[in-house]
Amino acid sequence: MTIPVMEIFGPTIQGEGMVIGRKTMFVRTAGCDYSCSWCDSKFTWDGSEKDAIRKMEPAEIVDALKQEGGEHFGHVTISGGNPALLARLDGLIDLLHADGIKVALETQGSRWQEWFTKIDDLTLSPKPPSSGMKTNFSVLDFIIESLQLKQEGSFSLKVVIFDEDDLVYAQEIHQRYPQVELFLQVGNDDLETTDEKEFLPYSLRRYEQLIDRVMENDILKDVRVLPQLHTYLWGNKRGV
Amino acid sequence: MTIPVMEIFGPTIQGEGMVIGRKTMFVRTAGCDYSCSWCDSKFTWDGSEKDAIRKMEPAEIVDALKQEGGEHFGHVTISGGNPALLARLDGLIDLLHADGIKVALETQGSRWQEWFTKIDDLTLSPKPPSSGMKTNFSVLDFIIESLQLKQEGSFSLKVVIFDEDDLVYAQEIHQRYPQVELFLQVGNDDLETTDEKEFLPYSLRRYEQLIDRVMENDILKDVRVLPQLHTYLWGNKRGV
Repeated sequence: MTIPVMEIFGPTIQGEGMVIGRKTMFVRTAGCDYSCSWCDSKFTWDGSEKDAIRKMEPAEIVDALKQEGGEHFGHVTISGGNPALLARLDGLIDLLHADGIKVALETQGSRWQEWFTKIDDLTLSPKPPSSGMKTNFSVLDFIIESLQLKQEGSFSLKVVIFDEDDLVYAQEIHQRYPQVELFLQVGNDDLETTDEKEFLPYSLRRYEQLIDRVMENDILKDVRVLPQLHTYLWGNKRGV
Repeated sequence: MTIPVMEIFGPTIQGEGMVIGRKTMFVRTAGCDYSCSWCDSKFTWDGSEKDAIRKMEPAEIVDALKQEGGEHFGHVTISGGNPALLARLDGLIDLLHADGIKVALETQGSRWQEWFTKIDDLTLSPKPPSSGMKTNFSVLDFIIESLQLKQEGSFSLKVVIFDEDDLVYAQEIHQRYPQVELFLQVGNDDLETTDEKEFLPYSLRRYEQLIDRVMENDILKDVRVLPQLHTYLWGNKRGV
């Protein structure tokens, strides 16, 4: 029944996706069924920090969140790794809801869990070709059909874009699920730099290039194009 | 029946607020009942560009949007000035909806119009003390109560923050309308500069300062804190 936890931090802002800017706490779980080439959290699955993984009961996680965030938060984001590997995450979700705290979660959409229907802000981020991963569309179809039946909470799709093939993939996603809000996110291809003076103008140029490509595209009509705001603020630093 | 139009441009991204990142076209109407000290669109009401105002029929505006944006857009943002001064804006809204185009609108919430209920993404941005304006809370209460009855479309509150008094005002707004999503936006106090090298780090520092203040605030729990993304990309340039 325990949950493998890698990091707990906040409150800070959610830097990306459907609730960008939202004041939130983060719980990052360990373990992933994917191994994306450009993953910005490889430490959750590549074994490099396996000694940092804590097996925690839901109540322990809530305590840790309160110790870290005090009375300042009303929203918790569960990220990974792929938290959808954890069949019993609903214990944590229920505890947070019982405290009036909303829950966001991000997963690639490779696995369905019944507790998806309880998440307030669910981001499905299927991975484009540049990741090296293959999307199982029958699983993703099932997840999206199931979520479309639910009455409460909201969900969205997010695709990270590194190159033209990724844009074509995003078009396919947009055409396959036209009713689902789609966020396109600029890929961060410089995960190492700590030189913020260099990083920022470079990132903004890449964001502008993606905007240009999307603005001229008549399939990608109803989309949102966003950067990772936290990288503008804090570069590649962790725990902020 | 004509609408006083100041600018039509796009497609570009919406740089702020509830649909930040959304691919959209912009229609900027002339005229405002406010005169905020830090308004970034004074040309819509200070007379400096009154010769640029075109009195346009709704169909002419749709034609101009299509000429500018071709087949590339599915979303139009109506901004001002204060477009809520225009009692007959519903002609334009209906025409756009008939074409399958969604409509966003931003207003300070000083006037009610029946057509508010037709807007897909409605931002109410009451102005904090630093603006020099006074909020008429009985009007704002009426608008928010009326919008809470509607079934379709969504609306949110946005408060621009320049100083501590503005933060206190945002707290009042959050406590008065706890069910309405609240966006806090960093005020841009340098509307003149064209030196992007200076502007960007300065803006980011101000954004980070606002984040810090909100994170430690236990009244401002369920809020989103955002910059104006377009200023990161294009500084104070107009028409992008």
